[in-house]
Amino acid sequence: MRKRSVRTLLALAIVLFAFRSGRAGLQDGDPSYRQTVDRLRETGLAEERGLEFLKRITSVGPRLTGSQEAAAAVDLSLRLMKELGFANVHTEPVEVGHWVRGDVGKAEIIASGTRAAFPLAVCALGGSVGTPEQGLVAPVVEVRSLDELSRLGPKLKGKIVFFNRPMDRRLTDAFSAYGGAADQRVNGASAAARHGAVGVLVRSLTFREDGNPHTGLMQYDPGAPQIPAAAVSTLDAGVLSTRLKEEQSVSVSLRMNCRNMGKVTSANVVGELTGSELPGEVILLAGHLDSWDLGGGAHDDGAGCAAALEALRLIKDLGLRPRRTIRAVLFMDEEFGGTGGRAYVRAPQRKGERHLVAAESDRGGFAPVGLAIGGRDSRVLKTISSYADLFRPLGVTFIVPGGWGVDVGPLIEQGAAPAAVMLNAQVYFDVHHSALDVVSSVHPRELELQAVILAALAYILAQEGI
Amino acid sequence: MRKRSVRTLLALAIVLFAFRSGRAGLQDGDPSYRQTVDRLRETGLAEERGLEFLKRITSVGPRLTGSQEAAAAVDLSLRLMKELGFANVHTEPVEVGHWVRGDVGKAEIIASGTRAAFPLAVCALGGSVGTPEQGLVAPVVEVRSLDELSRLGPKLKGKIVFFNRPMDRRLTDAFSAYGGAADQRVNGASAAARHGAVGVLVRSLTFREDGNPHTGLMQYDPGAPQIPAAAVSTLDAGVLSTRLKEEQSVSVSLRMNCRNMGKVTSANVVGELTGSELPGEVILLAGHLDSWDLGGGAHDDGAGCAAALEALRLIKDLGLRPRRTIRAVLFMDEEFGGTGGRAYVRAPQRKGERHLVAAESDRGGFAPVGLAIGGRDSRVLKTISSYADLFRPLGVTFIVPGGWGVDVGPLIEQGAAPAAVMLNAQVYFDVHHSALDVVSSVHPRELELQAVILAALAYILAQEGI
Repeated sequence: MRKRSVRTLLALAIVLFAFRSGRAGLQDGDPSYRQTVDRLRETGLAEERGLEFLKRITSVGPRLTGSQEAAAAVDLSLRLMKELGFANVHTEPVEVGHWVRGDVGKAEIIASGTRAAFPLAVCALGGSVGTPEQGLVAPVVEVRSLDELSRLGPKLKGKIVFFNRPMDRRLTDAFSAYGGAADQRVNGASAAARHGAVGVLVRSLTFREDGNPHTGLMQYDPGAPQIPAAAVSTLDAGVLSTRLKEEQSVSVSLRMNCRNMGKVTSANVVGELTGSELPGEVILLAGHLDSWDLGGGAHDDGAGCAAALEALRLIKDLGLRPRRTIRAVLFMDEEFGGTGGRAYVRAPQRKGERHLVAAESDRGGFAPVGLAIGGRDSRVLKTISSYADLFRPLGVTFIVPGGWGVDVGPLIEQGAAPAAVMLNAQVYFDVHHSALDVVSSVHPRELELQAVILAALAYILAQEGI
Repeated sequence: MRKRSVRTLLALAIVLFAFRSGRAGLQDGDPSYRQTVDRLRETGLAEERGLEFLKRITSVGPRLTGSQEAAAAVDLSLRLMKELGFANVHTEPVEVGHWVRGDVGKAEIIASGTRAAFPLAVCALGGSVGTPEQGLVAPVVEVRSLDELSRLGPKLKGKIVFFNRPMDRRLTDAFSAYGGAADQRVNGASAAARHGAVGVLVRSLTFREDGNPHTGLMQYDPGAPQIPAAAVSTLDAGVLSTRLKEEQSVSVSLRMNCRNMGKVTSANVVGELTGSELPGEVILLAGHLDSWDLGGGAHDDGAGCAAALEALRLIKDLGLRPRRTIRAVLFMDEEFGGTGGRAYVRAPQRKGERHLVAAESDRGGFAPVGLAIGGRDSRVLKTISSYADLFRPLGVTFIVPGGWGVDVGPLIEQGAAPAAVMLNAQVYFDVHHSALDVVSSVHPRELELQAVILAALAYILAQEGI
């Protein structure tokens, strides 16, 4: 496309948006926020330090809960927050589980008749037990749902259950498609084990057909036998499914030495810009420091951590003085149970504090498109909607109720209003929990816009309250 | 003028708002479009054939206007439209320029004193003359604007002018940043030549610092000497700028054998779903088949062509019967002067036709975020805004006036209403006109959503008129 200006269009969009919010006059009469948000945007986009923070966080390697790398990320984040001049920088202990993948994770369709063996790209699901050392071999039964599993019942005894329901690609909303398929990964093993199955393979949760297995949390029901659970790449799920249609019986071998190692002490990392007038009233910006171990944990959730740090950095570097405290918390253990979020609300430091808003960024580092805020409480939605025209030039084209997140869940239960920047999610599950989740898949401007929006949101809320 | 247009816009906004808030009932009472749009989405996202068409179009190679590859793309598109069962499939001739890059495009900072020579990553700008066969060598003068150039005046005699004003990264809107820097590329050579300069180097138009030169159209003023013009990668623009600060005089050698080859006959490719009731009233979906030659022309504009084809394919495959004609036109020569768009309106086939809406897709294959429609004519904006809730689940979070495009410009002058799907543009200029504009940088779902939106838009307009 050749030279073309969309500036006019954006101006029009702003007018429309301002009108929809019904308070066009108010923003025109409030030049201070407009100037502030402009400066946040200009400085953020010119400097793009969000990406710098992301590179530093991910430099320690994948940060599996309880791992050495997660501990290194805690140390590094603590140093980084001090270096950035944040106040009250400290860690708060979190007791977390420690699961290790081990060094063996293999599966293969067993040769039979004229058919050669076929290696399957698999990875252990997080929390899975390993197989016996020599591995296990069993005939495979393919199912599409937990319901279908129940119907097959006793036929599953001694089998490997292969959950192969894809994410529904007809849905525009990738998170809905993910939510609609994740039960197989989270609950499939115990459901199968109750019928005597000896292992499960789960189709990776991604829209794409490729060779990357996608890991993620699985959970054992207290009453059920613990059987090994692995994700298989979508391409190889296709191979296995085709083979099952062609052959009377298909057996797979599975060998994994992952295991649970018990509890270790890890930490949330906390730093803030202390409020000049109401320091006990907190606007919280959060990401999670732990990640899965196959990639670099860049989108999930190095990006959220980097955006929170960059938001505070921008507010501080511009010399803004928030009336209420704006705090960044890099939570530990979002992926393995959310223990960090629960430890945070119980920590002695919370005494005398009141969290007004808790904004968790855990949707990757993609281009912002909107804001979800306030959950069922319309007050903060109203406050921020009245400034819609300030957010529009940052890419925020809608502001809707919502914004819940795992780590801030316990804060929200105690009355904090949730908030989240909504992002373009079409690519997210291509990389999510896989080897593809690396820094090179994060765009510096898209990440920076998220940080700028968080900075503007936090600053306005710190000044206005709710 | 400004006040007045704001008033008009507010009027539009009121209309929009009224429709959005007050007519939810209407859409709920109009199950046929809702069901249709759902089916378009479900089929499109499930099948993702937009990417298939993109792969086929780009399989002929880069499609520089007038080239053999452009001719191959015309043949292939004609076959593809017939294969898809479109009606009235044909080509319409377009006389186009034919510029060739040649096989030499080199530049180097000349060694001097203790400083070694440094090769610069450059490429000829489209339309540039070549250098003398042995190349040219001249001292370099860096400028940031055409104004600064004018001030230096006679000092530029015998020099290579280095235009080094970056795209303003502080702007969220990448198209505005591009528009604000493109004058150097388009008009820099003639402006410099009027002061006696012997060549120009232009900083590549991208936010990113990398080693890829980005080409694009440059134009010679009729009165000015024609001097060679090349783009230099942003990284090497940095190197050259630093060297100019460190040394009293820096000379660069430039050697290119690009040249203009005169006129050749090429073609627009046309196919349609003929309207069942009003075949002479046309809703047009457009992309441009020509591209630059450094990459694959995937985002610019294979994506636009693929989206138009896929939109028609979806409507046809679902068995929908549009009342008015929905036509796909793959224009030739958007990049080198827009001759295809002008030839289209003059073609004998236009007799008795009336184009109601002309929707050009030339913003890449990225994730849709909104719709710009109707230009200054509010009727079509009104019509489509009344169906806003059908477009929202496709990612369309705003509907604003606008939608102009180069190829459909002549149609719009004759009264057609413009329309365009607005996309996330943060990555666009990273790849635009460079070797990075390849199919692997297009996401199948993001491209498909654009096609689905175009299909829904075209179908509703074909049924409703404006």
